[in-house]
Amino acid sequence: MELNKKKAVVLVSGGLDSTTVLALAKNQNYEIYAITFDYGQRHNYELEAAKKVCSHFEVKKHIIFKIDLRQFGGSALTSETPVPLDRNESSISSSGIPITYVPARNTVFMSIALAWAETLKAYHIFIGVNAVDYSGYPDCRPEFIESFQKTANLATKEGTEKNSFTIETPLINLTKKEIIQKGLSLGVDYKMTTTCYSPPAPFKACGRCDACQLRLKGFKEANVNDPIQYERNNIS
Amino acid sequence: MELNKKKAVVLVSGGLDSTTVLALAKNQNYEIYAITFDYGQRHNYELEAAKKVCSHFEVKKHIIFKIDLRQFGGSALTSETPVPLDRNESSISSSGIPITYVPARNTVFMSIALAWAETLKAYHIFIGVNAVDYSGYPDCRPEFIESFQKTANLATKEGTEKNSFTIETPLINLTKKEIIQKGLSLGVDYKMTTTCYSPPAPFKACGRCDACQLRLKGFKEANVNDPIQYERNNIS
Repeated sequence: MELNKKKAVVLVSGGLDSTTVLALAKNQNYEIYAITFDYGQRHNYELEAAKKVCSHFEVKKHIIFKIDLRQFGGSALTSETPVPLDRNESSISSSGIPITYVPARNTVFMSIALAWAETLKAYHIFIGVNAVDYSGYPDCRPEFIESFQKTANLATKEGTEKNSFTIETPLINLTKKEIIQKGLSLGVDYKMTTTCYSPPAPFKACGRCDACQLRLKGFKEANVNDPIQYERNNIS
Repeated sequence: MELNKKKAVVLVSGGLDSTTVLALAKNQNYEIYAITFDYGQRHNYELEAAKKVCSHFEVKKHIIFKIDLRQFGGSALTSETPVPLDRNESSISSSGIPITYVPARNTVFMSIALAWAETLKAYHIFIGVNAVDYSGYPDCRPEFIESFQKTANLATKEGTEKNSFTIETPLINLTKKEIIQKGLSLGVDYKMTTTCYSPPAPFKACGRCDACQLRLKGFKEANVNDPIQYERNNIS
C-alpha cells in the first residue's frame, strides 16, 4: 500500500553516518524526504555526495536548503580559520569541544527539518548523530536530542494535536565500526560518501583531520578497506 | 563602561510587540544585536519597518537574515492561500490554531538567533512572544519557551561551558493594552511599526485580519489612538 507508507524526513550530509541512516530508513520502508544544508561550508563536494546518495536510494524528494551561517562566523568549518590536522591541544577548547564546531548547527538544521516535517505530516525525523566515536560536539548528545524532541512537540501545531514527532537517532550509541558494519549489511557503497573537513582535491580525503581519522579508525576496526581515496591514511 | 555592556540578541519583526521588546532591552542598557528574518513573507513592509525601528533605537548591529520557508509551504502567511479576514470558523483548525501559523517558525528563528548569540557571546535572547492577546500559536506558549531554553543550553558549547543562555520574553504575560502602555512609557512611536497580515497598500493596515484586530483592541483598551493608517478600523 504505497499510499499508506509512513513518511520520514532524513538529514543527509553526504557523509558516512547520514548515508547509513538513509539506508536504515529506506530499509524500514519509509517514504523519504531528504534535506541537505548548503550552509556556507568550505567546499561543496558534500553537496555532490548528498545528491549522489539520495539518487541512489531513490528518495521521494531531496531539498538542498540554503542557509548562510557564514555571516555569523565562529567556526573553522565556515570561516577562514584553518581546519586542525593531526589532533592536538590547540584545536580543542577548554571544554573539549573542537574549533570545527559550528554554533548551534544541529539545532538550526533540526528546526528547519521540523518545519518541513510538519508541512508534510512526516512524524519521523532521522539524523545521524553519534555520541561514541564523535568529535565531542554538544549537539550530538542524547540529552540534547531528547530535549529537542520535547521542544519540537511543544512548538508545533502537529505536536499539539497529538501526532507526536520523534527524532530518530539510530546511530547514537554505535561505534564507527558498528555503523560501517550496519551500512555494509544494508549494501551501502561508502565510495559515494565524503567525510574529510579539508579535502586536498575533489573527492580526495586528507586522512589527517579529525573526521578522516575517526572514519579510518572505524574501517580499520571493521577490518574492511575504505573505498575512498586518501592523500595519507596512516592513523596517528 | 561601554566595553562591559551586556550583549543581547533581539528578534525584531517590525511589529508592535518586538518593537516594545527592543525598547525594553535598550532601556535595560544592553548592547543590542538585532535580527530580522526575510522568510518569504507575502509583503516586505515588515522589513522596512524593522530597519526603521533598529535605526531609531541605534542598535549595535542589525542583520536581515534570509531564509526561504516558502519552499515548504503550509501557511497562509507564506503561500498563496488568502489570509482570513474577520475571524471566522474556517480560519481556525481543530486545535484552535489559525491557518496563518507558519510551521515551526519560532523554533527556526530562535535557533538561528542562538547561533548568532553563541558567536557573539550574547547570553540574552529577547523575543516578543505573548500568550495573552495572541493568535493561539503553539510556539508562543511559556512551556515552549522554557523547553527551548533548556535545549539551547544543551545544544551549545557556550551553554555547556556554563554561561547559560536565557530566552527573555518580557511580554509573555501582558495584555496587548499593557504592552502598548509599557511601550508608550518608554517613548515608543508605534507609527514606525506594522502589524497587518494583508496590507491593502504600503504602510496601510486592513483593520480586519486577526493581527489588526488584536492591535486595535489593545489601543482601544489603552484609550490611546493608534497612529498608523487603517483601511477600516471598527473592531468586530
